[in-house]
Amino acid sequence: MNKLLTPNEIRQLCRHGKYQDPTPGLASGYVQANLVILPKSVAFDFILFCYRNPKPCPLLDVTEVGNPEPPIIAPSADIRSDLPRYHVFRDGELVEEVTDIKEFWRDDFVGFLIGCSFSFEAALLSAGVPVRHIEEGKNVPMYKTSLDCMSAGVFSGPLVVSMRPLSPADAIRAVQITSRFPKSHGAPVHLGDPSAIAIANINSPDFGDPVTIREGEIPVFWACGVTTQTAIVQAKPEIAITHAPGHMLITDIKDE
Amino acid sequence: MNKLLTPNEIRQLCRHGKYQDPTPGLASGYVQANLVILPKSVAFDFILFCYRNPKPCPLLDVTEVGNPEPPIIAPSADIRSDLPRYHVFRDGELVEEVTDIKEFWRDDFVGFLIGCSFSFEAALLSAGVPVRHIEEGKNVPMYKTSLDCMSAGVFSGPLVVSMRPLSPADAIRAVQITSRFPKSHGAPVHLGDPSAIAIANINSPDFGDPVTIREGEIPVFWACGVTTQTAIVQAKPEIAITHAPGHMLITDIKDE
Repeated sequence: MNKLLTPNEIRQLCRHGKYQDPTPGLASGYVQANLVILPKSVAFDFILFCYRNPKPCPLLDVTEVGNPEPPIIAPSADIRSDLPRYHVFRDGELVEEVTDIKEFWRDDFVGFLIGCSFSFEAALLSAGVPVRHIEEGKNVPMYKTSLDCMSAGVFSGPLVVSMRPLSPADAIRAVQITSRFPKSHGAPVHLGDPSAIAIANINSPDFGDPVTIREGEIPVFWACGVTTQTAIVQAKPEIAITHAPGHMLITDIKDE
Repeated sequence: MNKLLTPNEIRQLCRHGKYQDPTPGLASGYVQANLVILPKSVAFDFILFCYRNPKPCPLLDVTEVGNPEPPIIAPSADIRSDLPRYHVFRDGELVEEVTDIKEFWRDDFVGFLIGCSFSFEAALLSAGVPVRHIEEGKNVPMYKTSLDCMSAGVFSGPLVVSMRPLSPADAIRAVQITSRFPKSHGAPVHLGDPSAIAIANINSPDFGDPVTIREGEIPVFWACGVTTQTAIVQAKPEIAITHAPGHMLITDIKDE
């Protein structure tokens, strides 16, 4: 994959079935977005859930009912085909993984585009702050916590966090840097003792892979977009469609 | 009215029919909020309209469907009784002004609390920047403009702005100060030539009162909460209830 392709060029490749792989590292400098598609019957509850929990669910854009185009972040895109891979949930259960959702699309569907951590990770790396799971070629470790999201209608659930181990000096720098990215989960929600947020075993994440924590490093925790998937599984809407993990919408807006 | 009453004490007076007057100047230091109540059938469209137009419609809080309590900004309040005065609209027409809306309340109602300009005006005054309509004991002048809001479902319409005349030095100071109040309409949207945003006659506002513009002063324009009322009149929902102008919800949160 040519890393110099523009966001629109990558979306066109996805649209025509020519790209079906993860998107990290593509279209450097452009924001990538999580996708959640829900029927209008639960759309108000979900947008309110995002509004009330902006750290795990920073809303970047919302489509009009029945219209697959995100008007603010990617006006020419079609969320039915322009991501490489999708997950289809029925009654809160993952039932299918597909590369195009045109056959599932309905006139009452609403698409929510939600910020992800790629933007702030790029900023950490360019400031010389190491990102362990990238160094180790793994998925970021993620954990359910004892912190509850503020519920909204049918949506509720625990805050899910991602973790990056850092030296104290790098942790301070990371707080400063990620505070500048409120649409990409923003500042950490916790650092240090995992048990303070009810994480029993830091080496056994609920999602993703464990990573090495070196002598003198402390775990730093950020709100994570997987929070929305947990809320969807718990709410059991008749249908929900999301991006497959790591297979995001590449938008036309810049990181900073 | 004792200006040292707490927000909760003022809300209790409203609740028991003992206060029915405008709220500017009450509970100094606490945020006051515009209120819009709509049926759930158009609630998704309206929250999306607010999300897409944050300068005129900065959302402070949203109630759960059927629940009259604003969970974030005034957890003990009841939006059916705790404002001094309400306007009831049917099919976009103002049909009644009342001091309590318990008889109109429905299980499918959602309340939206939206920031107003009182917070930033207090900050301007305490920085020594004059606010003309307050000096002259008038309502702020407001104008429809040629700037369109971004539409959302059934809601659309022009941006309505309020105007305060300032010396160039005070205008600069006002930009700095109001930029710190994004939940209170934030920085101005325009300054100088009114015709650039299609205001034909600055001395003939569409809402409120004209104010004196002195030699050497320039008009400075901020996004205005009346934008939501214009959008509601245009969308003609079967029912909508708002605060009566100047009769706001006094919240438990501080200005800064």
